[in-house]
This record gives sequence, C-alpha cells and structure tokens, in this order.
Amino acid sequence: MSFDQHDPVFTLHRGGKLVVNSAVPLSTRDDLSLAYTPGVARVCEAIAADETLVHEYTWVKHTVAVVTDGSAVLGLGNIGPRAAMPVMEGKGALFKQFANVDAVPICLDTQDTEEIIAAVKAIAPSFGGINLEDIAAPRCFEIEQRLDEALDIPVFHDDQHGTAIVVLAALRNAAALLDRKLERLRVVVSGAGAAGVAVTKMLIAGGVEPGSVIVVDSRGAIHSDRTDLTPIKREMAELTNGDGVSGGIAEALRGADVLIGLSGGTIEEEALAGMAPGGAIFALANPTPEVHPVIASRYAAVVATGRSDFPNQINNVLAFPGVFRGALDAGATRITEGMKVAAADAIAGVVANELRRDAIVPSPLDPRVAPAVTEAVAAAAVRDGVTRS
Amino acid sequence: MSFDQHDPVFTLHRGGKLVVNSAVPLSTRDDLSLAYTPGVARVCEAIAADETLVHEYTWVKHTVAVVTDGSAVLGLGNIGPRAAMPVMEGKGALFKQFANVDAVPICLDTQDTEEIIAAVKAIAPSFGGINLEDIAAPRCFEIEQRLDEALDIPVFHDDQHGTAIVVLAALRNAAALLDRKLERLRVVVSGAGAAGVAVTKMLIAGGVEPGSVIVVDSRGAIHSDRTDLTPIKREMAELTNGDGVSGGIAEALRGADVLIGLSGGTIEEEALAGMAPGGAIFALANPTPEVHPVIASRYAAVVATGRSDFPNQINNVLAFPGVFRGALDAGATRITEGMKVAAADAIAGVVANELRRDAIVPSPLDPRVAPAVTEAVAAAAVRDGVTRS
Repeated sequence: MSFDQHDPVFTLHRGGKLVVNSAVPLSTRDDLSLAYTPGVARVCEAIAADETLVHEYTWVKHTVAVVTDGSAVLGLGNIGPRAAMPVMEGKGALFKQFANVDAVPICLDTQDTEEIIAAVKAIAPSFGGINLEDIAAPRCFEIEQRLDEALDIPVFHDDQHGTAIVVLAALRNAAALLDRKLERLRVVVSGAGAAGVAVTKMLIAGGVEPGSVIVVDSRGAIHSDRTDLTPIKREMAELTNGDGVSGGIAEALRGADVLIGLSGGTIEEEALAGMAPGGAIFALANPTPEVHPVIASRYAAVVATGRSDFPNQINNVLAFPGVFRGALDAGATRITEGMKVAAADAIAGVVANELRRDAIVPSPLDPRVAPAVTEAVAAAAVRDGVTRS
Repeated sequence: MSFDQHDPVFTLHRGGKLVVNSAVPLSTRDDLSLAYTPGVARVCEAIAADETLVHEYTWVKHTVAVVTDGSAVLGLGNIGPRAAMPVMEGKGALFKQFANVDAVPICLDTQDTEEIIAAVKAIAPSFGGINLEDIAAPRCFEIEQRLDEALDIPVFHDDQHGTAIVVLAALRNAAALLDRKLERLRVVVSGAGAAGVAVTKMLIAGGVEPGSVIVVDSRGAIHSDRTDLTPIKREMAELTNGDGVSGGIAEALRGADVLIGLSGGTIEEEALAGMAPGGAIFALANPTPEVHPVIASRYAAVVATGRSDFPNQINNVLAFPGVFRGALDAGATRITEGMKVAAADAIAGVVANELRRDAIVPSPLDPRVAPAVTEAVAAAAVRDGVTRS
C-alpha cells in the first residue's frame, strides 16, 4: 500500500463515518410486537390507504440520498463510485451535524445518464430528497432536470446550486461592504462546468444583469458567434455577455468588477491587472485556487477562496444542510429558484451586521447558519407554492 | 383517517424507526479537514488505487440494503413501496439490535424484474450486502439468482432463506427430541411460493431425502405428471415426491411425519388425521396459522407457529442478523448452501441441551443466537472458499 496508515485521516476513516441506529426500543417481546410484527402491519395498512402518511410514520420525511456516480469527485475527477464513498459519507455526517438530516450515501455503479436516472427514480420512494453530488457536466444538467420533473421530492445537485447559493451570499455581502449594487457589477465567471453555469444563473436570479456577466471556458469568453458550444453553453451565450466580448480571460476581465473562478485551472496575474479597482475575486478551485489570495488581493478589495486556511471560505456546507432541512420541513416537492435565493440571503444575513473584508461569509461552523437557512427556505417553499398539500 | 392515532403502534412509529448518525467528531475546523476536505481526498485516492480498501475505510463493510418492491409484504400482499417502509425499517432496527449491522431500507418504485435487477446492481457499490425482502414469487427467484451471479457481495432473499434456515433448525431439534433422523422423515411442505421452495431445498440440504418430501400448492401435490407447473415448480416436481403422490393435502399427508405450512391458507383437521403419529406440525402462516396449534397438537408431538403468543416461534430474526454479520465479517462474496446449513445448525445448537417440546428453537430475544450464527456462517464462508482474497 502506498499510503501512510498512521496518517490521522486514515485512522479516523477506519470503519467509515456513518452508522444507522434504531430509534425504538427492541428489548422485549412487547417491543418487537410494536416495532415489528404483528403491530407494524397496522402502520403499513394505514400508509397503503393514504400514501402521504409515509411522511408521518416512517423516516422518509427526514432522509436524503446523497447520490453520485463518482465521475467528478472533489478535484480528483472520475475516480468511480467506491472511491467516492468517503466524500459521500462526509456529506452525510455534515447533514446530520448541521441540520439533523439523515443522509444515506448512494454510490452508483454506472455513469450512463439513462441508467442513473432510472436508478434514482427506482429508489426515490425511500427518501425525502435527492442530493446529487459530484456528477460530471454536462450529464449532471440533464440528470437533475429530468429527475426534478419526474419526482415529487426535492432534487438538488449540490456542486451546482450549493456553490451558487454561497457565492451569491458572498457577493451580496461583498457588494454591501464595498457599497456597490449587484445590478451595476460586471462579473466574469471562469469555468462553464456544473458550478460555473449554476453560479451564473444564481447571480442573475439574485440581481446581476445578465448582459454584464461573461462566462469563460477553456477556449475563452463564451459569446453567441462561437460554433463549438454544447447546449448549456449555447444557453449561456444567449443569456450573458451583452457586449459580445471575445478572446481569453484577460479580454473578459478588462474592466470587470468581480472574478469568480470555478475552473480548476490557473489565472495569470497579468490578466487580473485589467480589472476595475476595488472589486472582488473569488478563486474557488480546490485545493489550489486559480490565483493565490495574496496575489488576488493586489487587484481586488475582497478576496475569497474555497479553502479553510484563508479568509472568506466559500463552503457548500453553509447551504446544503439548511436547504434540505427547510425543504423537508415544509414538505416541498422541489427546490425553486426562490428557495435558493432565500438561502443565499439567509447566509449573507447571518453576518450582515458584522461584515469585514476578511469575513463576508459565516464560518462553516457557525451554528446560526443552518437554522436561518432552514427557516428562509421553508418560508420560500410556502411562498412559491411547492409544498405538498 | 380510519386508524386510531392513539394506538401505541402509531405513537411509536411517528418519525420512523431509524436514524443515520455520524461516527466522527465534526465540531472544529480540524475535525472538518480530517473527515471532509481536504483530508478525505487522501482516502478517496487510496481506494481509487485499490478498491478493496473500500471495506476498510468506509462504512460499506458493515452495511446491508434491505430491498423490497412492496409486492408481498407480511400477510398484506402487494401494498407498494411506501406502505412497505415500516417493515423495512423494522428489519433495519433488528439488524442493528441483534448483530450491529447498519441496514438501509430501499423501497423500489418498480415491480418489473429487469428494473429491480438494474436498480440493485446500480446501488450495489454502496453496500456490503443485499437483503431482498417481501418480493413476490416467482419473480423473487430470478431476481435473487441473477443478482447473486452479477454481484460480488452477498445477496439473500430473507423470505426464502431466512425462513428456511429457521425451519431446518427447528426440524433438527424436533427430530432430536423425538429421537428421529431427518433422513427417515416423510415431510409435506404446504405452499410452493418463495418460502415453500426455499424450505424444501434447505431441508434436503440438511439431510431430508428429496423423494420423501411432497410439496403441495393450491392445486394439490406437485408431481411430474402435472402440466400446469411454473419452472420452479417443475424443478420441485423433478426433485421431490418420489412416490408420485397426487391429490390434495389430505392425500399428501397420509403417513407423513412432518407438515410445514407456508401457504397462508387453512388446513382442515381431517387432513391431519392421516399423519403418522408422533410427528411435527409447523403451521407458519401469519397472523393466522394454517391450523390452530391446539388442534395441531392432537396430531403431532411437536407444534410450532410463526407467532410470538404460542410456543416454538419460527422467526426469521433468529437467522438474518447473524447470517449477514458472519458473511460481512468473513468478507464473503456470496451466501452458500453450506453457510445456510451452518446457520441452521448454530440456531439449533443454542438450545440443543435444553430441548423441550415447547422450546425447540431459541427465543427471538436470546442473545446467544446472533453471535453463534455469525461465527458459524463466517467459518462456513471460509470453508466454502467464498471470501474475498
């Protein structure tokens, strides 16, 4: 074996990070006859007569499946379902810790879009929500959309929307700190994968002008004259880049107020020099930001990364536990744009009165966050009319 | 709502019977960086390089999916996946209580054989074993067989083999008590569904002569001249009923030593009158035995049922927790006939020195059972050469 077995990470992971426990006593014959046969049959019959009772008399109401195909795990890429398990278990542990959601990792032995959709549809009655995780673009878009349409429980690809929610929260607070309005910001999103696309849509839903956003992929700025675009990038081309800027990241950044790095690559310092002064750089690639925060801070007033060892960590854990808890509590059948914006506003709101340039988002461990997100998301679900009647 | 909400069964079931808990601390930044990013990436990379490490550094090694399509739940029949959930949760609670196995209920939104197989294959990397549950015959036979061939983890349809193991254990002890040999017993199995077929095979694996067994379905004794047989009943016809007995249950029972009821119907007292004296009747239909134990005891020296309020309860919980724990501990890739027979012998052995006519099997709550079954099954897995190298 090529790894260090004395590494504390391996010591911690031995035997895994989750357990299933019984919530009922099972020590006596009476216990057995209530929790199992013959008593359990009465609960089965009640649910058979009225299926909505499954949310009252089973654990479905507070469970989420964390589903991956192992194709885009962290920065590690396509490592397959078994190697993805430690991340999915970690996600489950975070769900429990922050929002008392019972999450079950489901690592799928297929990377075929149709097979993934079929498997998730098949297991859906067992869960209150589906958290898609670390599924590669572009298949993640179709999988999420079709499951969202097919299922009557919330479906949420965290790599897209978890990131997007926290980025919007961070940008709201950065703008407030800098006394700017989202409507007036020029934003460059570097990366047109799952996160890049979702962040772009979320920022627009949050108030940024569509034409003022430029999305950049590995071949440069996305504009409507390009002939090499996938359907989702074609959608980005039609929605964004009102001035039809072409060229590379340097051209896109000329005069930009905000750079959001979601590419995993590197961005040269020269490209940053063209940005408008006093803006923001979120360099979110993990573990290596697209630009080191020390360099980024020469060109921007606010700098954020995805790492815990620099200020302003943009971490999905600020969003997903409360998003699902709120959706489950409200009996939401899906997660709307309004619920995501509400989550972002709630995250931003937690530290709105204590903003500093090195603290535009709450700490991932801030216990105020998940309850605030839960409440905001549940209220938005009611407002948007997506709760089970 | 038509049920009594003050019924203690409903009070107990509110919110369900299982929870997922984190097994690791998550209170500090250091905790997060070990259990989640960036530390978790090292575990992912190790598993990507050597997939067998998934059994060491994730929870897979101690998990079982309890999978149903809701088509044959208890005595309730085809009530669907949502109404089946309370039974699957109960099963999970029993797995935990008796063998510290972490079980996840998976209730499938399909009753199509191919779709069930595809869904279970897709989710299989997430679990150390698959407990199929309450899936109707005859599709349960094909589903189990094809999954057993396709997967490198144990697959076990409890309605078949859990029941069969406990019946063999009970018959071993009944025979010992009556000073009879299994090889000399004439046995009638009433019912040719999932349990009837598996019990027949298990009794033969345990020593009963194939030709001395008669299986009876709703149309009477199964024999090779019948032209209305499904493939599995055809297999039974070729294997059993050496004398080619035809007719109904009364004809089959003439001179029989043992009746095993697995039909869900009723058996008239007159039919029992033809049995050889001093034998055994196991009337296992739930909640109503095929023949009341008081009546059965007029025609047999030993009587057992599936109910907790009569002596000699034949309950699967004596088998499945230890069977899976033993298979998981040994790293078994499947569950062999030898492992099942070993489980039966272990269950019988627990009370072998304290046999009474009203105590031929241990109580479902006997804490000696699961460890004995675990040890016996793990040893049999090694003996049968089905452990991961």
